[in-house]
Amino acid sequence: MNLVKPQTIAGVMELLPEKQIQFNYVLNTIERCFKQYGFLPIDTPLIEKDDILFAKGGGETEKQIFKIQSESKDMSLRYDLTVPLARYTAEHFQDLSFPFKRYQIGKVYRGERNQKGRYKEFYQCDIDIIGNGSLSIFNDAQLPAVIYEIFSQLNLKDVLFQINNRKLLNGYFKYLDIKDSEVLLRTIDKMKKIGMSKTEELLFSDIKDSEKVSKIIEFISSDELNEQKIKNLEKDDFNNIYSEGIQELKNVYEYMKLFNIPDENIKIDLSITRGLDYYTSTVYETFIKGYESIGSVSSGGRYENLTENFSKQKLPGVGMSIGLTRLFYQLDNLGLTKDYNAGRIDYLVIPMHKQFNEKALEVYNSLKNYKSCDIFLEDCKIKKKFNYADKINVKECIIIGEEEVLNGKVTVKDMKTGEQKLIELSCLI
Amino acid sequence: MNLVKPQTIAGVMELLPEKQIQFNYVLNTIERCFKQYGFLPIDTPLIEKDDILFAKGGGETEKQIFKIQSESKDMSLRYDLTVPLARYTAEHFQDLSFPFKRYQIGKVYRGERNQKGRYKEFYQCDIDIIGNGSLSIFNDAQLPAVIYEIFSQLNLKDVLFQINNRKLLNGYFKYLDIKDSEVLLRTIDKMKKIGMSKTEELLFSDIKDSEKVSKIIEFISSDELNEQKIKNLEKDDFNNIYSEGIQELKNVYEYMKLFNIPDENIKIDLSITRGLDYYTSTVYETFIKGYESIGSVSSGGRYENLTENFSKQKLPGVGMSIGLTRLFYQLDNLGLTKDYNAGRIDYLVIPMHKQFNEKALEVYNSLKNYKSCDIFLEDCKIKKKFNYADKINVKECIIIGEEEVLNGKVTVKDMKTGEQKLIELSCLI
Repeated sequence: MNLVKPQTIAGVMELLPEKQIQFNYVLNTIERCFKQYGFLPIDTPLIEKDDILFAKGGGETEKQIFKIQSESKDMSLRYDLTVPLARYTAEHFQDLSFPFKRYQIGKVYRGERNQKGRYKEFYQCDIDIIGNGSLSIFNDAQLPAVIYEIFSQLNLKDVLFQINNRKLLNGYFKYLDIKDSEVLLRTIDKMKKIGMSKTEELLFSDIKDSEKVSKIIEFISSDELNEQKIKNLEKDDFNNIYSEGIQELKNVYEYMKLFNIPDENIKIDLSITRGLDYYTSTVYETFIKGYESIGSVSSGGRYENLTENFSKQKLPGVGMSIGLTRLFYQLDNLGLTKDYNAGRIDYLVIPMHKQFNEKALEVYNSLKNYKSCDIFLEDCKIKKKFNYADKINVKECIIIGEEEVLNGKVTVKDMKTGEQKLIELSCLI
Repeated sequence: MNLVKPQTIAGVMELLPEKQIQFNYVLNTIERCFKQYGFLPIDTPLIEKDDILFAKGGGETEKQIFKIQSESKDMSLRYDLTVPLARYTAEHFQDLSFPFKRYQIGKVYRGERNQKGRYKEFYQCDIDIIGNGSLSIFNDAQLPAVIYEIFSQLNLKDVLFQINNRKLLNGYFKYLDIKDSEVLLRTIDKMKKIGMSKTEELLFSDIKDSEKVSKIIEFISSDELNEQKIKNLEKDDFNNIYSEGIQELKNVYEYMKLFNIPDENIKIDLSITRGLDYYTSTVYETFIKGYESIGSVSSGGRYENLTENFSKQKLPGVGMSIGLTRLFYQLDNLGLTKDYNAGRIDYLVIPMHKQFNEKALEVYNSLKNYKSCDIFLEDCKIKKKFNYADKINVKECIIIGEEEVLNGKVTVKDMKTGEQKLIELSCLI
């Protein structure tokens, strides 16, 4: 028979069980925190109709899409969890309670070019809070609190939330009499990558006015401490949109602290804009101090109307997202995932010979309700049995042989130290 | 703007959050049991190359596949978790420890006709144990023990494992001098659905020998108790394959009991064959007593060589699978999912007015490390706040108003009884 070469498609992350346990540890930590903060789960299909996915217009996204071959219907794999959330919220509007706090963790698909740390299939972990008609600004402070809790539980407490409010920038651009502020926001979004002088160049080619460019650069680069920065911003009263921006940003900042995020983990940074059009006020990015090279580990912001393409209701919302697959790749590369090992089993019960299988099963049955454990019933040399125990990285082996059966005891072998002791079974439980 | 009608593609299950919590409860129970029994997680991509998916030949499966549109490569969505497991095991063979016990829970895709309780996208929850060269028959007994544990934890302890061994039937057919036993196994597989007399008809059209048909019907319909059935089967010694079948079936049956499955939950049933070609000895189906109409809730069996299309190694294995989406649909229809509500939050902290937001956050912060809780910061009428609490089905509300702030206490309202009491915060923790 001709053998087929066993390999995954290109550009996907597939892990060995040992790494998968670490990956799942991160995923479970994220989900636990989402739930703990009162977010409700949803699980939408991976395939959506194209008219849903591209309701906003295709553009760049459409080029990256995985389309399903089908004679009668146009459908594709989802490329994010936000469009499905919008469709879900509009479809089930009558049955949902608002504010609708939902989380979703799932795979999404983008035909990115093959590149290290970039994946065609990757997990997104999203939380969003959707209001019906209106949504208080305090929700914008709870989302970072959830993200802070997650990274604390992953022993990465040293995160830095960079927050901003687009209204503030839009108000300032309006004051400078600049019309197309979306273009400028996208240019400024690149600053951390391309540097200040390149940004200045691009801004100049956007608006052709070096005086205004200088003012913008000065405005977005101010680096006072948070409290001082707000005080300075409050001194000006350019227009309504600007004032709204200040007030919202101040509220988010103060409530983040009330949600127990330390001040040193927050940075009001007016150069944070997020490239995406649909954010309208609060925007966030999150970095891990000392590991800024990873990039933002969680981003998001507030949008004015989630379901504008699907319904007449006005449903403002705010969301944050963790790109889990890329995050895990980076943390793993930095050697930071070593402690994420919950899920290994405590005991492996090993009969020395198959004649002790029954006794071993008895011991196994009495243990398994108290401890995570397994039993090894393959008929092979004892050395092979311990090799297996080593490989699956079990903590202790419970050995059942003649002596153990006669004395009604068990031998416990610590697989790290190699130490063995004969003890009463009841002492184990 | 033209609105797009928000709807999922046809034939998928999408749940409201309340039901999703119940669904996740079942999923988490399954995963917890898999882990507890020492199975390791893997997570393969949803997209596989077509030459992998159809290495065994396409046939009926290929017609149901969701193909990805692509210029250069042929790839599709997986239709089960077994082919990806085979590919995974062959691809990572050098890095795995055998016996390789893996679990995988994930969505698979089949273009089934739209029909109630049948889904195009559905979750499979699979456990398999793969040996390198050989694999002891005792593993065939551990799998039902895991499944038994799962259904016990779902309060569905009254399961019935119907077990059989294909070698037994193949040996018996050989003794009757029947060549193509695969055809007969597939016919017998239908018996529970089509009834005895229709099965007799089909068997006759398969082998054109009414005497042999009668013998087969008699052989597969015997309904003694398990112990007696084995004794009767052991009386005959038709050929080696038959004797092997008996010995294996007996071992699996006895070890299932040693794994603490009560005898009344096991039925040796010689009419269980499973339709699929690749099973070679042990086969199982699992029913819930009193709810047999649901169909088998977990099926599986042993196969001789998992990776035959991908490698020269001989890797025998045994597996069982739960079709979670269909199972949940059935349990929900029968009203059996009502108690699967873990995941609701305990407390909702409600400030009576926004001036108490800070105090409410203080209370919330001190509670949230001990209890699952949320805080409601929308600025709206108090009635609307309690409506929300009702809808998200929280157990108790913690109310913070003037009185509470003055006295340093909190009001706790039981949302079921409506009872309110003013207590010290410390009493809650």
